[in-house]
Amino acid sequence: MEVIKGGVTVAEGFKAASCEANIKYKDRTDMAFVYSEVPCVCAGTFTSNVVKAACVQWDKQIVDSGKPMQAVVINSGIANACTGKEGFDACEATAKAVEKSLGVDYASVAVASTGVIGMQLPVDKLVAGVEKMSKTLDGSIEAGTDASKAIMTTDTVNKEVAVSFHIAGKKVTLGGMSKGSGMIHPNMCTMLAFLTTDIAIEKSLLQEAVSEVVSDTFNMITVDGDTSTNDTLLCMANGKAGNDIVKDKNDDYETFKNALFYVCEFLAKKMAADGEGASKLFEAKVVNAKTKEDAKTLSRAIVGSNLSKAAIFGCDANFGRFLCAMGYSGAQFDQNDVELFFESKAGRIEVFHKGTPLDFDEDKALEIMKEETVTVFVDMHEGDAEATAWGCDLTYDYVKINADYRS
Amino acid sequence: MEVIKGGVTVAEGFKAASCEANIKYKDRTDMAFVYSEVPCVCAGTFTSNVVKAACVQWDKQIVDSGKPMQAVVINSGIANACTGKEGFDACEATAKAVEKSLGVDYASVAVASTGVIGMQLPVDKLVAGVEKMSKTLDGSIEAGTDASKAIMTTDTVNKEVAVSFHIAGKKVTLGGMSKGSGMIHPNMCTMLAFLTTDIAIEKSLLQEAVSEVVSDTFNMITVDGDTSTNDTLLCMANGKAGNDIVKDKNDDYETFKNALFYVCEFLAKKMAADGEGASKLFEAKVVNAKTKEDAKTLSRAIVGSNLSKAAIFGCDANFGRFLCAMGYSGAQFDQNDVELFFESKAGRIEVFHKGTPLDFDEDKALEIMKEETVTVFVDMHEGDAEATAWGCDLTYDYVKINADYRS
Repeated sequence: MEVIKGGVTVAEGFKAASCEANIKYKDRTDMAFVYSEVPCVCAGTFTSNVVKAACVQWDKQIVDSGKPMQAVVINSGIANACTGKEGFDACEATAKAVEKSLGVDYASVAVASTGVIGMQLPVDKLVAGVEKMSKTLDGSIEAGTDASKAIMTTDTVNKEVAVSFHIAGKKVTLGGMSKGSGMIHPNMCTMLAFLTTDIAIEKSLLQEAVSEVVSDTFNMITVDGDTSTNDTLLCMANGKAGNDIVKDKNDDYETFKNALFYVCEFLAKKMAADGEGASKLFEAKVVNAKTKEDAKTLSRAIVGSNLSKAAIFGCDANFGRFLCAMGYSGAQFDQNDVELFFESKAGRIEVFHKGTPLDFDEDKALEIMKEETVTVFVDMHEGDAEATAWGCDLTYDYVKINADYRS
Repeated sequence: MEVIKGGVTVAEGFKAASCEANIKYKDRTDMAFVYSEVPCVCAGTFTSNVVKAACVQWDKQIVDSGKPMQAVVINSGIANACTGKEGFDACEATAKAVEKSLGVDYASVAVASTGVIGMQLPVDKLVAGVEKMSKTLDGSIEAGTDASKAIMTTDTVNKEVAVSFHIAGKKVTLGGMSKGSGMIHPNMCTMLAFLTTDIAIEKSLLQEAVSEVVSDTFNMITVDGDTSTNDTLLCMANGKAGNDIVKDKNDDYETFKNALFYVCEFLAKKMAADGEGASKLFEAKVVNAKTKEDAKTLSRAIVGSNLSKAAIFGCDANFGRFLCAMGYSGAQFDQNDVELFFESKAGRIEVFHKGTPLDFDEDKALEIMKEETVTVFVDMHEGDAEATAWGCDLTYDYVKINADYRS
């Protein structure tokens, strides 16, 4: 597998566009369009939030129907959540605008929104945006990058990645883009992520690979513990690589799944590091847990704790907070088995050993914690399962961003 | 029932003391002692955190044993959690110091600690503190107030309350004190709370009343979603009121339970309002839910959300965040049934009506949200259960306090 430049446009037959639609933001792009020349099999994972945005309900219909997907229209600024029938009508109007402009069945057009909840989308601006973008669809790397910028809200960097690999001699490409960066505590999926690939694969296998990989990547990140109303990941596969269609869990399937894991983990970590107000990527790695579920629960609790996050911001090796978070996570364990370390590029230090606090070197700990990526490494000594979760620190800027988000 | 001045010393036969033991804090009191002249029946609720502090394990033994309790020794500064056998030995040494000074059985002496996790207590200082306080035990209101100050950590105000009521002609008194104010997300109980009463009541009924009341009061507050390792509530009843012992769930029991509810709700709300860095008390009232459990889940999710808390800090009527939190809470509901209001002393405004966002008056909303106590009122229109939860806003000061707590 090779990591290559670009994002959603690098797979064969995919194009993208973006535009300034003035939906809520001014003087920046706020709509993006991802399009495949031919219909795609698709997979998706969506928020587990009971309050699902209109666009989530729309996309779920498509993914569940088994019908092909050919395009996704995305806007930033307004989330189209808590918007009743009017919100759902906006999804349909957007999809119909694509049908009118490009002649594709509107039932194969997904939509996604991100931004303020409880505000109606201006349908005329969405439709005008679709018309404009339909004329500028482009397969260049730049068009994909521009699309990844148009979907940003409080993100500080755009997030895209692409890889290529071979399946039985055929080159296959997979690219993706995603955005954060608040209300991030995915459960079934993350805020917004779009993956495009030219692999030929059966829909059921695509969905299975996506669901499995998402549960170990996007579902292992948290910024603030708030599972959004809009979490959506869509993966479109158009078959243009020309490989024999993948229809069994054979080596080809594993090759694809590994590439998918790389792409999803890359984007997920980028989102965590770019969490609202974040100054650090905060990683928790739990090893030798009783079960995989325990390892996931424990690692997520560590990176999810406000107190742990504030300690990471303050470069404070206040390890009791991490043990406290593990203790209320729901997983059962004996603190007398646990070893806890801090790790970063600057080194590694043990601070708690099987029930007893260690008299560790505070200067060394500070040096370790000052790095941009800090890992809490926990050895449970109870089994052989492991998991990693990613989050970020809790900073003044998180409060600032969210105390006046709408203004 | 009458609300009276004072706290843990107002019930007949209870005394308190406090002192500067220099455990971690300097130039302030950091140990408190609550003592009953005669042995008490006792009830307790403790943290559900798997990582239980040594003092929690010690107190649980006493409460579960059915033996009487006669004293509680509390220290602030160090939590005695994650401290292994050495931590448990510190509990025993403290209790034995009480036995030596006052001649009470050490197995009837509870201990409680609050502060930094993962640090050992200086046993010599604890023992010296007990010796000093044994000589200054006093039944005055002031002694109780001083005790409530000695147990503070990041609290900005001390928290105490007392009530009196009559049971079959006998005057009964109940008082209490508690402390917050970070790592507050009680599950079975809150950080530290101590209740004293002179009622004569059977132990099993006392425990039942305490457990029931705690689940609707202390367990309904949150500051940061972090369930502490040290959460402890102890209630001691010494029978000095001289009432016929309460041994059935009769009117006397209900009278006591109502007084207990008042005291616990008062202290719980005080703790929420004084959450670390808080500038406001943030209340969520959910009515007409399908079940009581749903109402509790929904109201706790609202006050627990970082994004909701930041919006409350910013006086931003960004109601989508509250609906989002309800949606991921775990309760099932249809957003098309929901009505959501903001309320405070300055008035009441509806912002979301049965699935549709309302075009509300932003100036009026701002006026309402600027008050010191802000309520999110949600009508589910699904049943007749209701619940209230309390929290606080998320502020710069919360981050400040927790980014350098140990230094």
